[in-house]
Amino acid sequence: MPGNTFGHLFRITTAGEAHGPGNIVIIDGCPAGMPLSEDDLRPDLARRRPGQSRIVTQRDEPDVPQILSGVFEGRTTGTSIAILIENRDQRSHDYRDIKDKYRPGHADYSFDAKYGFRDYRGGGRSSARETTVRVAAGAVAKKLMAMEFGGRVIGYVKQVGHVIANVPDPASVTLEQVERLPNGEPNIVRCPDYEKAAEMVALIEQIRSEQNSIGGIAEIVATGVRAGLGEPVFDKLKADLGKALFTLPAVLGVEYGIGFGCATLRGTENNDPFYARRVEDTSGAGGGPRIATRSNRHGGMLGGISTGMPVILRAAVKPTSSLPLEQETVTTRGEPTTIRTRGRHDPCLLPRFVPMAEAMVALVLADHWLRWKASGKMGG
Amino acid sequence: MPGNTFGHLFRITTAGEAHGPGNIVIIDGCPAGMPLSEDDLRPDLARRRPGQSRIVTQRDEPDVPQILSGVFEGRTTGTSIAILIENRDQRSHDYRDIKDKYRPGHADYSFDAKYGFRDYRGGGRSSARETTVRVAAGAVAKKLMAMEFGGRVIGYVKQVGHVIANVPDPASVTLEQVERLPNGEPNIVRCPDYEKAAEMVALIEQIRSEQNSIGGIAEIVATGVRAGLGEPVFDKLKADLGKALFTLPAVLGVEYGIGFGCATLRGTENNDPFYARRVEDTSGAGGGPRIATRSNRHGGMLGGISTGMPVILRAAVKPTSSLPLEQETVTTRGEPTTIRTRGRHDPCLLPRFVPMAEAMVALVLADHWLRWKASGKMGG
Amino acid sequence: MPGNTFGHLFRITTAGEAHGPGNIVIIDGCPAGMPLSEDDLRPDLARRRPGQSRIVTQRDEPDVPQILSGVFEGRTTGTSIAILIENRDQRSHDYRDIKDKYRPGHADYSFDAKYGFRDYRGGGRSSARETTVRVAAGAVAKKLMAMEFGGRVIGYVKQVGHVIANVPDPASVTLEQVERLPNGEPNIVRCPDYEKAAEMVALIEQIRSEQNSIGGIAEIVATGVRAGLGEPVFDKLKADLGKALFTLPAVLGVEYGIGFGCATLRGTENNDPFYARRVEDTSGAGGGPRIATRSNRHGGMLGGISTGMPVILRAAVKPTSSLPLEQETVTTRGEPTTIRTRGRHDPCLLPRFVPMAEAMVALVLADHWLRWKASGKMGG
Amino acid sequence: MPGNTFGHLFRITTAGEAHGPGNIVIIDGCPAGMPLSEDDLRPDLARRRPGQSRIVTQRDEPDVPQILSGVFEGRTTGTSIAILIENRDQRSHDYRDIKDKYRPGHADYSFDAKYGFRDYRGGGRSSARETTVRVAAGAVAKKLMAMEFGGRVIGYVKQVGHVIANVPDPASVTLEQVERLPNGEPNIVRCPDYEKAAEMVALIEQIRSEQNSIGGIAEIVATGVRAGLGEPVFDKLKADLGKALFTLPAVLGVEYGIGFGCATLRGTENNDPFYARRVEDTSGAGGGPRIATRSNRHGGMLGGISTGMPVILRAAVKPTSSLPLEQETVTTRGEPTTIRTRGRHDPCLLPRFVPMAEAMVALVLADHWLRWKASGKMGG
Repeated sequence: MPGNTFGHLFRITTAGEAHGPGNIVIIDGCPAGMPLSEDDLRPDLARRRPGQSRIVTQRDEPDVPQILSGVFEGRTTGTSIAILIENRDQRSHDYRDIKDKYRPGHADYSFDAKYGFRDYRGGGRSSARETTVRVAAGAVAKKLMAMEFGGRVIGYVKQVGHVIANVPDPASVTLEQVERLPNGEPNIVRCPDYEKAAEMVALIEQIRSEQNSIGGIAEIVATGVRAGLGEPVFDKLKADLGKALFTLPAVLGVEYGIGFGCATLRGTENNDPFYARRVEDTSGAGGGPRIATRSNRHGGMLGGISTGMPVILRAAVKPTSSLPLEQETVTTRGEPTTIRTRGRHDPCLLPRFVPMAEAMVALVLADHWLRWKASGKMGG
Repeated sequence: MPGNTFGHLFRITTAGEAHGPGNIVIIDGCPAGMPLSEDDLRPDLARRRPGQSRIVTQRDEPDVPQILSGVFEGRTTGTSIAILIENRDQRSHDYRDIKDKYRPGHADYSFDAKYGFRDYRGGGRSSARETTVRVAAGAVAKKLMAMEFGGRVIGYVKQVGHVIANVPDPASVTLEQVERLPNGEPNIVRCPDYEKAAEMVALIEQIRSEQNSIGGIAEIVATGVRAGLGEPVFDKLKADLGKALFTLPAVLGVEYGIGFGCATLRGTENNDPFYARRVEDTSGAGGGPRIATRSNRHGGMLGGISTGMPVILRAAVKPTSSLPLEQETVTTRGEPTTIRTRGRHDPCLLPRFVPMAEAMVALVLADHWLRWKASGKMGG
Repeated sequence: MPGNTFGHLFRITTAGEAHGPGNIVIIDGCPAGMPLSEDDLRPDLARRRPGQSRIVTQRDEPDVPQILSGVFEGRTTGTSIAILIENRDQRSHDYRDIKDKYRPGHADYSFDAKYGFRDYRGGGRSSARETTVRVAAGAVAKKLMAMEFGGRVIGYVKQVGHVIANVPDPASVTLEQVERLPNGEPNIVRCPDYEKAAEMVALIEQIRSEQNSIGGIAEIVATGVRAGLGEPVFDKLKADLGKALFTLPAVLGVEYGIGFGCATLRGTENNDPFYARRVEDTSGAGGGPRIATRSNRHGGMLGGISTGMPVILRAAVKPTSSLPLEQETVTTRGEPTTIRTRGRHDPCLLPRFVPMAEAMVALVLADHWLRWKASGKMGG
Repeated sequence: MPGNTFGHLFRITTAGEAHGPGNIVIIDGCPAGMPLSEDDLRPDLARRRPGQSRIVTQRDEPDVPQILSGVFEGRTTGTSIAILIENRDQRSHDYRDIKDKYRPGHADYSFDAKYGFRDYRGGGRSSARETTVRVAAGAVAKKLMAMEFGGRVIGYVKQVGHVIANVPDPASVTLEQVERLPNGEPNIVRCPDYEKAAEMVALIEQIRSEQNSIGGIAEIVATGVRAGLGEPVFDKLKADLGKALFTLPAVLGVEYGIGFGCATLRGTENNDPFYARRVEDTSGAGGGPRIATRSNRHGGMLGGISTGMPVILRAAVKPTSSLPLEQETVTTRGEPTTIRTRGRHDPCLLPRFVPMAEAMVALVLADHWLRWKASGKMGG
């Protein structure tokens, strides 16, 4: 059944494979009149791009976006926006190994079980290349958020292996901190705790030299989200955000606010007390006294509806499944064998995962923003 | 915007509040010809029911389901099935306190921000009473799974506070183990590690005596799920299951397989090697040699598609927000105040959470089963 | 697959059969804060009610609506609204005839082919009793239209057999004209051309005395619909309205504006010239000069989007299939036989069809109104 | 709100404008393993192509389809299929006239009212060029129908102006008859009544010489559709087919079976008697005795569900709105003016409408076929 569409009012539909001509997204529901060009898409695509640093895969893809529809004289028309990103670096691999064997941790066997056959040249539709167009669509969603309600989504690497960053105030982290070190060089691991960032880079380089891979955790923070987004029962904001992050490859866990840490807390330790503060109007919610909480263990959502506090999520990302080391597996006929996955893989997915996660969070928030506009209070 | 519908081919739509006449679910998409009566719904409703043991809320609701449509002469007709569960124990509380104050950890403020007003007599639409009809619908989904492909969903309490159960083989846990102690008495905390179950009960009783509450973790296991369910990109099985659990009240985190534990693993430690085994045909997948994995850190899903291994999920559930202890908050006008939530609340949500979580997982699996039937291989 | 849901932002889901306990609708997406009670539903239910006059079926159903959720202290809460209408007059028929035979013109055979069996006591889910709750939901949609943008939907009988009403200005027809004759008596056939109304009544009475039935055409007019509703490609307003009317039992054709009459026109004869007029602001579109057309062959929609002119539709309704006269058919085992459908049937469906059609049109317009609010111009 | 998606299990999403780089469709839900290449798409695209004959627009577009994803080694992979058709003949028009004036019968004013501005170079998203990719997707749907259940969809021109074709047995019309005259020359008007075809061509040529345009009616017939497709209430097959045809530009009316003709019939004249016949198994419904009707005024659907009889629909298509003759209109500022639409327009839309209508009908039938597979009888 169709599973290539995401979102309701701000909705994307995607197509494309790792070894085909390219990937495409159709964005449906973006309001008319928003300034938009390919320039808006390039920064996040560059953050997701392979080959961007020494700790990511060296596949070389320029990832140039082409807007094919939905923009006229520099502004969105209100109709569907198609964006095409062509594949360039489709090296002529020797596919014999992966054609007849199931790579551990990959979807090869799942695809055969589901469809009866698969594009054996790589991940096909399950390749992370599919996320290029999600990142492009996410850039459109971010722009909508910024222009309509001053919203912002920023992610960063919170943990790689046992190295855990200390980020005392997630809502204050800036894109500049995530992308640049104090000395102006690129923050290639995207961790705003620079001391831990250096440790993470060292760990990833060591892991790569061992022909292995390592997992980690990303944290994503959305600010400027007014209270009232999300629906009470099934389309809770937390549920849609949770789904959004789980749609990304390699994500094995999602939590928000205190997350799994709530299991060992008492109610008195977990509840965030409300208080009233006087705020500037940056969220479209109107200025004046606004209700806030003194702590944010609830991660910006109560009853599945945003509270106006920063929305804070974390995703656990498994170590890359493709390994140059030999692993036990079976052939497609069920015979025991071993496999080494040659190719250019990320020793750690986290640095490139950050813009993907931001994109998915932005898509959900843009969607719920439009939902809120449609179904707010009577006459609202 | 409409947010009261869940699922695509096996789909539920719900309505109802804690203090209204009752809760209703319309199940749409259940195939014709399945035997069904209210008797199929009662066991899980009894497991969710308030007042079932000394460690849960003492609100007294019989939770009697009435099937109003979609069943003729004991079998489903293929058309929509409506189930009504009336509310009985709507005590005439003194609402003054919660009418004018925002309860910490509850959706009171979120609702006011979203809708401009709210049913101040309690949680309204965000009350856990809304889950009664989800559990009823889940019982229908479970029956469909059992009859069409021998699938089964079982949940249990994995952790309460710092008490963690040891469940070495989740796929072998039986409903009997979850519901009964070896001595035949009810396993009121629903933990199949009986030693830890006793500790959990003791902890919950202590917490209650302190007028406090405690969080925990539930584990849900689905077996008999054939390989091939789930879609590659957005409607990944893990994404739909993740959303499903996040739709439940109080859930702050969801993980599957090794979950957040993957963050500190290397690829060689995390990948599950494939092997071939000869299996009986219990899953509808056909007998003979079948591909399996030696371990199950992937939690039964790769690339978002089921592998035929048991599907294993965990949800983190926060401590009940309603507390008899005094907490800091504000009035609806933003003035500082304090609140004590009187009433009959669960000191720990986990024992009653188990059937709710099972229901949501069953709804997703029934849905993806039908999706698989519709869009499997050509001619399939 | 689920087919019991209609609409996107203003969405209804229904359940129920002719011979079960009752029919239910869940309305999802109605904005919060709208005054609503059962009193708002009764007038249109009375217009749809069997037994309302001598020219309709004499089945006696009071059709009392009960709002079970979504309304608190007389106003909608923004959450899902459930309405139950119980069946009362379920006479103990002798079903043997229709149990084992396929009634011509009915869905008996279709249901058996689809589901393998059917509720043989009558139409089951395909009975027109299912439309009770659509009419109730339509009354909510009409109220939303009236309160949010001054919109109004009125239908009437345009044709019965060869008797065709002359309604020179559809947009000026009032509910009073449709429901009452000049002498104050009920206009039982719901035709605002009183001369033709009398002829229609006479024709229907003659048809009934012949134990036969007769077809006709209804016309539905929506006014106060601002320009800009509808989407350019698939969710054209005309397409959603067309589908809406085709969902009603017995509808064999739908047209808008000049309709099938366009086939013999030249472009110069068909195009409606634009002109500018100064208008009062009744539509929420703002006052001042507004573009209109001198004629309305386009039926209020161009490119599938409303133009601000009255939306005018017509539906062709077949003669009732159930006939006391003997008809040729087969048994469920494929043997030739004959059938007479005993029971209390409408000799002409049109008078009771009018409120059903109005309801479906109102549901679409309420839905597109909310869609317009969500996705209008940037910042709009 | 998103309106660029059509269908549920076989679903298309489109983007593109008349004067942009091209049009794109993403087909989601096509089962895996179906042979597919661009060759499958070309025949219907050629039938829709401008410049194909002297009675259609002379804009020159080769309409070359490129499959960008979802096909591997000549077979569908089960994942989303993207098809791009680039625009070639985007002549540098002088747009001044249509930039500042509203063309009668076009969506110019509607778009401005909806979006605040529009692509003034032509129809933009509302141009019939958008239907290229619908026709391409329809070709995929037709292939699915043919391979999975032997279904077929054929359309033809039934009426142009007052010239009405006589087609006594719609279900027996062949593609060859629609496309070729007995002498082997192209049947450029696509009417299988050759005598009337000649009259239609003569009429269209006369109309063109008058710088005018003319309306007409197309008839579309689907055969091999097994009984049981369609849902009882809102997703009736007739409702989805009705919507499908109304999504096409210029359609002002849709009917099936006897259609509007039912208004003047009595029940005894309208009901189609059932009988049993012995049939070969060509529909996947199984051979042996099968129920059929002696006549087909019900157009192959009862209760909104297919009966196994041919599905027969008609659509009324208005005369082309663009006219070289001077017409009254207003400027975008509301000032009276006149307009002549220069350019290369169809004097009659019907010949090129036929493949568009076939495509939409095929998309609905492929969708409902997959729905039937998903939700047929228990264990089915």
